Amino acid sequence: MRKAASSLQPPASSLRPLARILAIGDELLLGRTIDSNSAHIAQRLSDAGLTVDYARTVGDSEAAIIAAMRTATRGAALVVCSGGLGPTEDDRTRHALARSMGVRLAERLAAWEHVTAWYAAHRPGVAVPEVNRRQALFPVGTEILDNDRGTAPGMLGRIGGCWITCMPGVPHEMHAMLDRLLGQLPRLVPGLAAPTVGEVWFAGLGESAAQERIPGLLSERDPLVGITVSELGHITLRAVGTPLQVRTRLRQLRAALKPWLLPRAGLAASLVHRLATEDGTIACAESCTAGHAAAQILAIPGASAVLRESLVAYHAEIKTRRLGVPARLIAQHGVVSEAVARRMAEGMRTRSGATVAVATTGLAGPDGGSAEVPVGTVWTAASTATGTIARRVRIKGTRERVQRRAAAEALYTAWVALTGTP
Amino acid sequence: MRKAASSLQPPASSLRPLARILAIGDELLLGRTIDSNSAHIAQRLSDAGLTVDYARTVGDSEAAIIAAMRTATRGAALVVCSGGLGPTEDDRTRHALARSMGVRLAERLAAWEHVTAWYAAHRPGVAVPEVNRRQALFPVGTEILDNDRGTAPGMLGRIGGCWITCMPGVPHEMHAMLDRLLGQLPRLVPGLAAPTVGEVWFAGLGESAAQERIPGLLSERDPLVGITVSELGHITLRAVGTPLQVRTRLRQLRAALKPWLLPRAGLAASLVHRLATEDGTIACAESCTAGHAAAQILAIPGASAVLRESLVAYHAEIKTRRLGVPARLIAQHGVVSEAVARRMAEGMRTRSGATVAVATTGLAGPDGGSAEVPVGTVWTAASTATGTIARRVRIKGTRERVQRRAAAEALYTAWVALTGTP
Repeated sequence: MRKAASSLQPPASSLRPLARILAIGDELLLGRTIDSNSAHIAQRLSDAGLTVDYARTVGDSEAAIIAAMRTATRGAALVVCSGGLGPTEDDRTRHALARSMGVRLAERLAAWEHVTAWYAAHRPGVAVPEVNRRQALFPVGTEILDNDRGTAPGMLGRIGGCWITCMPGVPHEMHAMLDRLLGQLPRLVPGLAAPTVGEVWFAGLGESAAQERIPGLLSERDPLVGITVSELGHITLRAVGTPLQVRTRLRQLRAALKPWLLPRAGLAASLVHRLATEDGTIACAESCTAGHAAAQILAIPGASAVLRESLVAYHAEIKTRRLGVPARLIAQHGVVSEAVARRMAEGMRTRSGATVAVATTGLAGPDGGSAEVPVGTVWTAASTATGTIARRVRIKGTRERVQRRAAAEALYTAWVALTGTP
Repeated sequence: MRKAASSLQPPASSLRPLARILAIGDELLLGRTIDSNSAHIAQRLSDAGLTVDYARTVGDSEAAIIAAMRTATRGAALVVCSGGLGPTEDDRTRHALARSMGVRLAERLAAWEHVTAWYAAHRPGVAVPEVNRRQALFPVGTEILDNDRGTAPGMLGRIGGCWITCMPGVPHEMHAMLDRLLGQLPRLVPGLAAPTVGEVWFAGLGESAAQERIPGLLSERDPLVGITVSELGHITLRAVGTPLQVRTRLRQLRAALKPWLLPRAGLAASLVHRLATEDGTIACAESCTAGHAAAQILAIPGASAVLRESLVAYHAEIKTRRLGVPARLIAQHGVVSEAVARRMAEGMRTRSGATVAVATTGLAGPDGGSAEVPVGTVWTAASTATGTIARRVRIKGTRERVQRRAAAEALYTAWVALTGTP
């Protein structure tokens, strides 16, 4: 469903240097932890001009890591590994890298100083546990990558003609380390040319309907145009190629999708952008969305100037007391109804004085559905000075998916109310 | 850091039948989509008694999928693939499976009937696009797996001695299909014995401190004990083995960690459980947590009976108007202060009548920090009939990480206020 274009024809991008990704850790193969690192690494490497042809997840077995490192480095320019650099006996990445490189491990003073400095700064008064000494062990000949967010420094080595880097599995430590490594790419992969990347965002038009408006574009490889449906309701079209190709393609895409275009990547970002430029504000009255509408808005830096307030009014009594939804209206129409959603939005607009107020009421499940109002039914409403609109949606999936997606639908309703989008 | 125990010694579990996971799609290798499917599949297969020794992500290239299928089926009992079953030309999974099995593709009437029935039910009045005919193509000899949530049926075939199944990449379609497939496991992998799995949850004690209280247990392989630190602040210890082993191990773990144990998997679930059994309620006054505290509570089924209301009071003016925090208190102590957090919690408890009210005020960033109040500083407070407590935390990472984690810290403050946990 969600995908970039195909690979039947060798794409122009296959001429780019290859990169591979290894995620290391038993917890990933037991399914206890979702590997978000590999996607982050893949995106950063692609944007830098490398082609990631596969990613692989292995457990904490030293033999398995060695085999994966040897296979991955064959024919590639860069292999990025994450995980397995912790202080305990079951962290084997450093040992596997040494064996794959055919060198021994030796304690590095600079790395040990980093570990002790980190403890001094972050655990004042706590002696560095003896186990952490392992984090100063480096394969001979590797470079140390600084870690400004944790104890484990990363390492950069070479197997055959390929660079291989090992970074901690903790995402925010890895992200910062990867940023710094990518700054060194011109030295590591000389002649690497980062392609130009451009994006167009839209909402209110489905994936198939959008594809019909841009026939042929998605099957081209050069420039490559990919489509991604966000879980939060907007769709991204992404063009990768030369600056001229990307400029031309973006112009075509924008012309084809004009009425549905968003100015920013996502509904929340677009709403915040538009309100901020117009000195407008927003307020939310959330029932089934449980705080997710406010959270999606406030995930955008600078949104604090735009969000006036948000109320999670789950109980009917709170809807009446705080938002002025008459109890008889709830009794007459049911709490999951257009009438209640409209009144919630209007009550919140009056109460807050915001430019636009959004409201949600629905059934997130897993229980409580009926034939008339099945689980996943959500009414969203948005109220402005010119009136109130309401939309009903049906969302499938888990309770949390319904909550998150319904919040995005409410933001879309606000977008329609503010912009008059069809 | 987060991990289960090591693999230096072949674990008892290596005698279990092997399974492997393939995630298919260019969008995964471009990093546009985080692969949550593989973790879900890994957990379900592990719990069913299979050992997942690796997972692999490949693009939409038919040759790459065939190579990955051939390698993965070698020596394994079951390979689960997700993605690449869509209607468009770039979806190559069905072709790759046919070539890997050495058979041709043929249209299957039952599958076509499914596609047309799905359209009739979900897109009434819309003719089935001709491209969807591809979704009725099946490798000869495969079984059809029903899809009750989308157009693409799944397929189950055999390569050598190994079962291989291909499912859609859309998570909620795949989840339902996998559930049904696992129901057939006794037929597919005769003699498969699902291990017993038991968990213990705790909060308020760090990972290293916890490990010191259970020396040796984490390096054992049989039973296997794993530790996972949740992003939402609690820690899970998980024992896998025979029923007797697991019972014994859980008893030891509970005894060692008694003061910090949680009754449910997570802070929100534990709070909801405790409040529900005591007819208690909770209310939230959220500033920097932006709705995440309410969202974490309401992610728990049944929480609607427990959450009275939640207010996102970002602006100082809203804190004053809705929660009665005196403007001079804010001016005197600053908005990110213990005094303001306490008053917010007390104001919310008075206003809502809830058993416990929590409050947050902090700096989620990325801008706005100072030497005294750096980005990531958060005050949390919880107010009950017996008094108000407050805790300050420093959280590193992105804006969203600070928001989510601070919400979990606020729930922990509420837990401490209700239970007297050290």
